[in-house]
Amino acid sequence: MTDPETKNLLEAVRDGAMTVDEALLRLKTEPFRELGYAKVDLHRKLRQGAAEVIYGAGKTPEQIAGIVGAMLSAGQKTVLITRLSAEQAEALRLLPDMPEFSYDNTARLALVGAVPPPDGLGTVVVATGGTSDIPVAEEAARTAEIFGSKVVRLYDVGVAGLHRLLSHMEELMSASVVVAVAGMEGALPGVIGGLVDCPVIAVPTSVGYGASFGGLSALLDMLNSCATGMSVVNIDNGFGAGFLANRINHMAKKD
Amino acid sequence: MTDPETKNLLEAVRDGAMTVDEALLRLKTEPFRELGYAKVDLHRKLRQGAAEVIYGAGKTPEQIAGIVGAMLSAGQKTVLITRLSAEQAEALRLLPDMPEFSYDNTARLALVGAVPPPDGLGTVVVATGGTSDIPVAEEAARTAEIFGSKVVRLYDVGVAGLHRLLSHMEELMSASVVVAVAGMEGALPGVIGGLVDCPVIAVPTSVGYGASFGGLSALLDMLNSCATGMSVVNIDNGFGAGFLANRINHMAKKD
Amino acid sequence: MTDPETKNLLEAVRDGAMTVDEALLRLKTEPFRELGYAKVDLHRKLRQGAAEVIYGAGKTPEQIAGIVGAMLSAGQKTVLITRLSAEQAEALRLLPDMPEFSYDNTARLALVGAVPPPDGLGTVVVATGGTSDIPVAEEAARTAEIFGSKVVRLYDVGVAGLHRLLSHMEELMSASVVVAVAGMEGALPGVIGGLVDCPVIAVPTSVGYGASFGGLSALLDMLNSCATGMSVVNIDNGFGAGFLANRINHMAKKD
Amino acid sequence: MTDPETKNLLEAVRDGAMTVDEALLRLKTEPFRELGYAKVDLHRKLRQGAAEVIYGAGKTPEQIAGIVGAMLSAGQKTVLITRLSAEQAEALRLLPDMPEFSYDNTARLALVGAVPPPDGLGTVVVATGGTSDIPVAEEAARTAEIFGSKVVRLYDVGVAGLHRLLSHMEELMSASVVVAVAGMEGALPGVIGGLVDCPVIAVPTSVGYGASFGGLSALLDMLNSCATGMSVVNIDNGFGAGFLANRINHMAKKD
Amino acid sequence: MTDPETKNLLEAVRDGAMTVDEALLRLKTEPFRELGYAKVDLHRKLRQGAAEVIYGAGKTPEQIAGIVGAMLSAGQKTVLITRLSAEQAEALRLLPDMPEFSYDNTARLALVGAVPPPDGLGTVVVATGGTSDIPVAEEAARTAEIFGSKVVRLYDVGVAGLHRLLSHMEELMSASVVVAVAGMEGALPGVIGGLVDCPVIAVPTSVGYGASFGGLSALLDMLNSCATGMSVVNIDNGFGAGFLANRINHMAKKD
Amino acid sequence: MTDPETKNLLEAVRDGAMTVDEALLRLKTEPFRELGYAKVDLHRKLRQGAAEVIYGAGKTPEQIAGIVGAMLSAGQKTVLITRLSAEQAEALRLLPDMPEFSYDNTARLALVGAVPPPDGLGTVVVATGGTSDIPVAEEAARTAEIFGSKVVRLYDVGVAGLHRLLSHMEELMSASVVVAVAGMEGALPGVIGGLVDCPVIAVPTSVGYGASFGGLSALLDMLNSCATGMSVVNIDNGFGAGFLANRINHMAKKD
Amino acid sequence: MTDPETKNLLEAVRDGAMTVDEALLRLKTEPFRELGYAKVDLHRKLRQGAAEVIYGAGKTPEQIAGIVGAMLSAGQKTVLITRLSAEQAEALRLLPDMPEFSYDNTARLALVGAVPPPDGLGTVVVATGGTSDIPVAEEAARTAEIFGSKVVRLYDVGVAGLHRLLSHMEELMSASVVVAVAGMEGALPGVIGGLVDCPVIAVPTSVGYGASFGGLSALLDMLNSCATGMSVVNIDNGFGAGFLANRINHMAKKD
Amino acid sequence: MTDPETKNLLEAVRDGAMTVDEALLRLKTEPFRELGYAKVDLHRKLRQGAAEVIYGAGKTPEQIAGIVGAMLSAGQKTVLITRLSAEQAEALRLLPDMPEFSYDNTARLALVGAVPPPDGLGTVVVATGGTSDIPVAEEAARTAEIFGSKVVRLYDVGVAGLHRLLSHMEELMSASVVVAVAGMEGALPGVIGGLVDCPVIAVPTSVGYGASFGGLSALLDMLNSCATGMSVVNIDNGFGAGFLANRINHMAKKD
Repeated sequence: MTDPETKNLLEAVRDGAMTVDEALLRLKTEPFRELGYAKVDLHRKLRQGAAEVIYGAGKTPEQIAGIVGAMLSAGQKTVLITRLSAEQAEALRLLPDMPEFSYDNTARLALVGAVPPPDGLGTVVVATGGTSDIPVAEEAARTAEIFGSKVVRLYDVGVAGLHRLLSHMEELMSASVVVAVAGMEGALPGVIGGLVDCPVIAVPTSVGYGASFGGLSALLDMLNSCATGMSVVNIDNGFGAGFLANRINHMAKKD
Repeated sequence: MTDPETKNLLEAVRDGAMTVDEALLRLKTEPFRELGYAKVDLHRKLRQGAAEVIYGAGKTPEQIAGIVGAMLSAGQKTVLITRLSAEQAEALRLLPDMPEFSYDNTARLALVGAVPPPDGLGTVVVATGGTSDIPVAEEAARTAEIFGSKVVRLYDVGVAGLHRLLSHMEELMSASVVVAVAGMEGALPGVIGGLVDCPVIAVPTSVGYGASFGGLSALLDMLNSCATGMSVVNIDNGFGAGFLANRINHMAKKD
Repeated sequence: MTDPETKNLLEAVRDGAMTVDEALLRLKTEPFRELGYAKVDLHRKLRQGAAEVIYGAGKTPEQIAGIVGAMLSAGQKTVLITRLSAEQAEALRLLPDMPEFSYDNTARLALVGAVPPPDGLGTVVVATGGTSDIPVAEEAARTAEIFGSKVVRLYDVGVAGLHRLLSHMEELMSASVVVAVAGMEGALPGVIGGLVDCPVIAVPTSVGYGASFGGLSALLDMLNSCATGMSVVNIDNGFGAGFLANRINHMAKKD
Repeated sequence: MTDPETKNLLEAVRDGAMTVDEALLRLKTEPFRELGYAKVDLHRKLRQGAAEVIYGAGKTPEQIAGIVGAMLSAGQKTVLITRLSAEQAEALRLLPDMPEFSYDNTARLALVGAVPPPDGLGTVVVATGGTSDIPVAEEAARTAEIFGSKVVRLYDVGVAGLHRLLSHMEELMSASVVVAVAGMEGALPGVIGGLVDCPVIAVPTSVGYGASFGGLSALLDMLNSCATGMSVVNIDNGFGAGFLANRINHMAKKD
Repeated sequence: MTDPETKNLLEAVRDGAMTVDEALLRLKTEPFRELGYAKVDLHRKLRQGAAEVIYGAGKTPEQIAGIVGAMLSAGQKTVLITRLSAEQAEALRLLPDMPEFSYDNTARLALVGAVPPPDGLGTVVVATGGTSDIPVAEEAARTAEIFGSKVVRLYDVGVAGLHRLLSHMEELMSASVVVAVAGMEGALPGVIGGLVDCPVIAVPTSVGYGASFGGLSALLDMLNSCATGMSVVNIDNGFGAGFLANRINHMAKKD
Repeated sequence: MTDPETKNLLEAVRDGAMTVDEALLRLKTEPFRELGYAKVDLHRKLRQGAAEVIYGAGKTPEQIAGIVGAMLSAGQKTVLITRLSAEQAEALRLLPDMPEFSYDNTARLALVGAVPPPDGLGTVVVATGGTSDIPVAEEAARTAEIFGSKVVRLYDVGVAGLHRLLSHMEELMSASVVVAVAGMEGALPGVIGGLVDCPVIAVPTSVGYGASFGGLSALLDMLNSCATGMSVVNIDNGFGAGFLANRINHMAKKD
Repeated sequence: MTDPETKNLLEAVRDGAMTVDEALLRLKTEPFRELGYAKVDLHRKLRQGAAEVIYGAGKTPEQIAGIVGAMLSAGQKTVLITRLSAEQAEALRLLPDMPEFSYDNTARLALVGAVPPPDGLGTVVVATGGTSDIPVAEEAARTAEIFGSKVVRLYDVGVAGLHRLLSHMEELMSASVVVAVAGMEGALPGVIGGLVDCPVIAVPTSVGYGASFGGLSALLDMLNSCATGMSVVNIDNGFGAGFLANRINHMAKKD
Repeated sequence: MTDPETKNLLEAVRDGAMTVDEALLRLKTEPFRELGYAKVDLHRKLRQGAAEVIYGAGKTPEQIAGIVGAMLSAGQKTVLITRLSAEQAEALRLLPDMPEFSYDNTARLALVGAVPPPDGLGTVVVATGGTSDIPVAEEAARTAEIFGSKVVRLYDVGVAGLHRLLSHMEELMSASVVVAVAGMEGALPGVIGGLVDCPVIAVPTSVGYGASFGGLSALLDMLNSCATGMSVVNIDNGFGAGFLANRINHMAKKD
């Protein structure tokens, strides 16, 4: 219940248009509507026209189409579907009720509606250690773009060939936030964190073999990195990193 | 070597004021000064008058006093010393060359010089799950303050008694960034992340017993939290969280 | 051997109807029948007409049908088969000797005979953090129902969107026991445990990716939860949670 | 805010004794008091006169005495202090403001006020595998007693000498709930779970050497035990087990 | 080189039948033949006519047939092939050069030649906790039989239903050595170890789900078991347990 | 209750010397005495005059002296106390009621009464990889001696200097059973297992640094060793290895 | 930019052939070319005509052919492709643009161009514990050969049959460097390290079952091995071991 | 027994100066002297006058002095004692029989006799990520020096401040072998490995907090590093790295 709604209710009680017991029942049975609303309101301010998100993994095409439909009916203009396999996307396209959408095969995400023009503070740099980290990086990059950030991609700049990374100092130094994606070794984010002065979001990937243990090795290394101004998201969580990067990139617009 | 410095050198070569070999030597022997300088320069813009940081653990009082002296000579106005035990602080105070400093017993950090007035975008909220998480939280809070952020503390608002957390919605909703510190269970950051729309930095603490495994359990839970807009730093790394929170809180001032 | 049976045997010895050696042999070769019987007897009091359980995983349809047949011959009215895949169920249905049964595709369990009317003390609430936890939750819910409990389902009420959980306070507060099922993060049971005053059984699920480690992350978090009145079963063990919930829900009827 | 309090507020608005804005402010600034109160209310019904609990570890004697004082002022008759070392207890006794209390050296807990007479449904059996598990078991047993349960202790009945356990079948069979505490091997709860038909709460202890890994080995074994009707609490968490056991033991009185 | 062989060589040198250089070469190029021979000799004494063993996993049918052929040519009468899948066995049977063999589908092993009559000291008891542990148990049992032991099988006597185990006390008490195989929980060997006074060999199996971690949980529990006279082999290593059990069972015949 | 005792009871019933109810009571209240007795009887045959064992760790000197006294009163001639620190031993010696005992500072065990003359089948060889493994090895060696085995010690024969091990082939080849104790690397038992044809009991020790993880590395290596005829006990469990080695060494005397 | 190049630039500035601004731009935009060049130059000296390497796993045949083509155009004479499955190799062969190559089915690597004649200091010995370690060993051996080393293979010389290893002392003693590959147990490198006086590179393999944990057990054992002069590469990393072995084998040629 | 010695023996037999039985006895009782000698001989060639090594940890001063004495008597000129605490060193100095020695407080090692002049191929570079890694690095550096290598130290050049590392390219490029020591993050060796073309030995240290897990995090990262030409030793094993580095640095002198 929003403040105006509660005020209406109290005025109705004052004016005798609603009994005390009716008012009590309404206040009691919806105690958390206020909370939810407040939050939605703030979101609206921040994300004007931004995409809503559906986690596609484990959902049937019918379920996804249903949720998309409900969102569009509710006035949503763009809908992002993450972790959507090519098979799911194909099946989705065959459904009669499903609106048009674009599908990104690398990032494994689909988008209903248009990508909004970037309105963030600066640029989000997405960097990867190797070529096999690119799918996770693309999930991050596409997410940040869809939510309104300009993204610069620096792929395959792992620390084993340091000159590749250093030849992109210009892009790194001008970033609002850097998303650093690496699998076999977790060194990349720490090295970048020592070069830039903006927040760095580290994303360990499950790429690798031997003692990489599905990304655990990279995760631990990133957590232990001495570089200040750096934090870590879950293994392979490109969406989370892109979403957070975009949020930070919009900080300046908040007030 | 900055661009103007390199330009000067090239002009000196052109004008015959410097031989080619002298110029070559200077360019060759200091190949990374340019890089370093650029970085320091950017830092200066951002952190005008901010504290430099010394990691106190494992250093002798003499070593610390020496580094502090060098920093002050170099024009630094405030110096932050983290992970400094009460014993180290006491010994430090007895050194003849050591300038005056304040010591925070809970956050285990010392400060030479004054805390600058807050100049960040908004407020940093630091929340803890229990009372035993407070030392790590204070390290984060004090760090953010020393670097120029206004900090609001919400301690002992763990999810086992949810109403304590919910009674502080106002403070949470108005934060620029939230640092959520928790040990025994990692739930706090995820719950907060579902309530607010600003970045949330999660700090697992090594507090706990049984299967808490020195913070590993909280760390894993935080990484797996579904809340978007959240990232994690190392176990007990209050300084890192406070530093990053302050950096995000100053984003708006960058350009 | 029950007390009356042993008494009969002793009386037969006393009366010369059984030789000492025959009695000795019977006592010696069945030393633990008494123990077993006592237990079965107590069970009978508690579970009058309740289902017997077969763990279906790794058994051939023929084996399952054989065990079901034996149980029915022994007077059992309902038989529950857990961890039964759709393929197994289909093959089972084709067997000529197999009696009719219903199959629950989500909970992956089959039931021969009718579900008894609920006769427990109150209601068992089964809650999940996300939609992907539902199969495990259904295994718990169906098990509790089959053994005689009324079950209320609260699905997808994870703490990342706290208002969803809080809008169901009424159901939670009136439960005899809550089964809280969660995968990606283990926070749900702890949050519920802080809201209710009945026993909470936490079930970690293997759902998730990244550092969820097949449910280990959720398991550790649940064990470390500060909430009192809460305990944990094995990862994905919906049956165990449902069985225990039902047992607690029948406590009042014991004497 | 309780229902009567809200009703009073609404009536004051209706009667003009409070303006709409004043009422709105009160409703807005304390949105979760209702929730908290409701919970306390339910607790009161259940635990009439029961102990409140303070976790003693990491608190100064002065802090503990302060909390105890506040609880007694609030009408609490008994206060339980867990994880209190002998040194803490001694220091506590010397404080002038601290009321009289008894201290249990084995269970490491203190009690202000009298233990209430047991009013639970039946008996709680607390069993241990070895003598070194007794401190954790006593924490469980004393907790259950203080909250109103009759407790039967079966110590040192580990499965390596099975006859010791089996000679106590009578006590086991008549329990409302069994707390099974074991360290070196986690077998005890599973064996008991196969013998009884009441809920079994397993408590792994950190006792042991070699590959016991601080209780992890026992914890894993208990989670994997096939026995139905069994659940697990955190390593060494005697209080949690005793509290839950007592709660289950009072189920019958709920309605 | 055996002592007599070395003596012959020395005598040949003494008698001038061999030059010093020839003798030096022989001594130098075969320094470890003596070692190898001694060992083979001892083996021969012990295992007169016993099977040689081929580890089948990862070998092609042609490789296996080749090794079998070489062994038979060398005078071996029986050859045991372990970890042989049904597919491998089928392919093996089609090879023209492969001699006849029997294949055990459960234990996944093949035998060329006849099983020798048992000549061990007593009986080897092989017990399992559940039905799904039987393949590993059969590997142990068949191996012990093939090497000359009489084997008694006690399957599905897990501690969750203790009476099943206790009803076989006679067989357990008369065993020379017990192989106890268990997966979901590691309790079985410890319980047996507390009942018998012969060596107990524990075999953890990878059967299970949730926190069983591929047998690790059972392995740790077995290592921590308090029972004396017990030791552990690798997860699923039925062959190793059976081979060791047979060796112990033949101890009496050594001298 | 032994068979003869039960027979006596049945005859008393038959002859009217005992009522049916008296007999029923006796059978009911001591259902597991038979089991316990049978076991003790078998033990007596095997271990005639052997030591009883007290695990000293965590027991007060008074408790130990009390248990020793009770054992001696019960006719026990020798009592072994393991895991007894030098401080405990000293305190024990000061107790007036404690009988004389010898204390082994390296193996950290005490013995009341005389070591029986060895009566085992052959010799037990105890080998260590390094000098720091000796305390665990001595616990094994002394235990085997006290229970009646002749022991040969081969210390510091680790595989990094293979010739040291190989120069003791004679002793290894003539052993009834080998206890191989190693910490930094677990290779020793596997190498010995490939040389001898008797059972090998591997004991990992917690000696080491770096990635030895308190013995876990050695433990895993031993479990994975390919050598047949080998099994493993818990980390640092010298007593368990010595006890089992002695048991195997007495196998021949069983019948 | 190399020294001569920078000198040319400076001379051009001095001589007026290049403006200061042009020179500044060149220095600024290619700050790391110098670094990269220096490195390539050193490599050229060392590896005259050696193969370039492509990691084949996860690349499409088209991508591989493209990279090969680019390398050959750049003057490379031989190209090594590692981790290439037989399927990939087959598909590669069908591509019209792909030059001829040989494929090694065991080592799973392909080679475009001829293997250079060995020009290393001595021989690289590659040894394995079992036959199943051979694929990893062949990756190491082939890599060392392709880069110019003579390789001696000692396969299946695991320590469980020590005489097999010892009968190859001659080859071991004359090696420049030994690559020791082992899976089930990590003992082999430590034993070899105790026998030879050249560097030993240990390669754990993921071969094994039970508690081998995908090579982790072997890895830990190798790290803990007491042998000096030994180091470890990642699990299954035959290429890394072979490359390093070859590099060490060429040390003498460096200057 | 060396070849000449065996030849002498054979000639003595041929010439009748030794009976066949005497020769047989000598050959039989010292079967591995040859092996050992061969090794010592090779060592002598390589390490002319080099130090023997004693692992000091866990040894009494008397034991150490005894071993030193024995080594000196055997003609050894320098003796290195590693892992020697300051307390041990002080106690050692007080022993009357102990010859003079120097003690290095940082590397925690002592040296009897003089450091030989460096005679290796080139220089060994020892680099550390932070200042707290210096003790382990010094153990490596001092070990390499004592065995005859020239060492260049590059301390505190961690990748978080990349310019520090890059400003030492000259030293890195001219090294024969680099020892890279790092704790909090394992990135340093990988970054160096990408810059140089000589072997890199990575040493993880146990320095750190939070999720560094006593060096495990750094260890895993180093194993996963993509850089070729790199290998890893155990956590904190500075001696092993220094010894191996020196061995590689002497490769060129081998023949």
